[in-house]
Amino acid sequence: MEIKYKAIGIIKSPFKATEGMPIQSASASGVRGEVIVNEEYLEGLSDLDGFSHIVLLFHFHQSKKFKLKVKPYMDNVERGVFATRAPSRPNSIGLSVVKLIGIEGNKLIIENVDILDGTPLLDIKPYIYEMDNYDNNFRYGWITGKINKIKGTKSDSRFFAK
Amino acid sequence: MEIKYKAIGIIKSPFKATEGMPIQSASASGVRGEVIVNEEYLEGLSDLDGFSHIVLLFHFHQSKKFKLKVKPYMDNVERGVFATRAPSRPNSIGLSVVKLIGIEGNKLIIENVDILDGTPLLDIKPYIYEMDNYDNNFRYGWITGKINKIKGTKSDSRFFAK
Repeated sequence: MEIKYKAIGIIKSPFKATEGMPIQSASASGVRGEVIVNEEYLEGLSDLDGFSHIVLLFHFHQSKKFKLKVKPYMDNVERGVFATRAPSRPNSIGLSVVKLIGIEGNKLIIENVDILDGTPLLDIKPYIYEMDNYDNNFRYGWITGKINKIKGTKSDSRFFAK
Repeated sequence: MEIKYKAIGIIKSPFKATEGMPIQSASASGVRGEVIVNEEYLEGLSDLDGFSHIVLLFHFHQSKKFKLKVKPYMDNVERGVFATRAPSRPNSIGLSVVKLIGIEGNKLIIENVDILDGTPLLDIKPYIYEMDNYDNNFRYGWITGKINKIKGTKSDSRFFAK
């Protein structure tokens, strides 16, 4: 079953190349970027300015063809791709929670940006902690004990076509 | 720019119709479901069993054509669609954080399911609180003061084609 989406805008960031990028928004503290939403969707941004954080869904447009086992940035062992956040996936959809600093027309000013410049935007959702969490008793499998590496780890070109 | 994805599996749940469904996973405590991942992706599920919670991205296959202003389940005022989690969106991608109970081959047993039976699966990611959160000073705009309604509110047919 094929599912077709359209880019509804574009994400701008200081990261022109995939090497050396923060690997998660948690490791991109203070990094500013912009989301330029296509004018036709402007009305859909109403009321968004009340939220401090938003979820961005986007298309990893430069990712390589996926492999089912990948060596993630934070490990030296191959892991199942669905147990990682690797950009090369069967459907290369990226997810970041970023801080919303302000909205100027169709431009969102965002912070904590771990996204490549020029990335096509798929969706924006309000981030509501209580919607997505109901307990705090989390187990993290292979990432256990590596959580403190999120902030310092940068990406390289392993998942990207150029 | 058109972006094409393929369903990589299907989500099974007790919800055969959109009316009366929990509106978020936080309001579906204890509700069990299954994710059936297509056999060709089986190897990609390695190491996932170590995680207590996973992020499911899926296609709202029964949603109506989107409108840019919508009346959400938890409000009587029209809001910009990107400031809501409404299923009818320019790109109808759904996001749920669910509890992973176990994996049997290509079948994931999940809990806290707020998803319609038969929904096409797009992606599975490990849920790692520390990746997506870096502070806890959240502002929720129009949802402020309505957070306690998440658990009790059920959906109706307003966003669905049948």
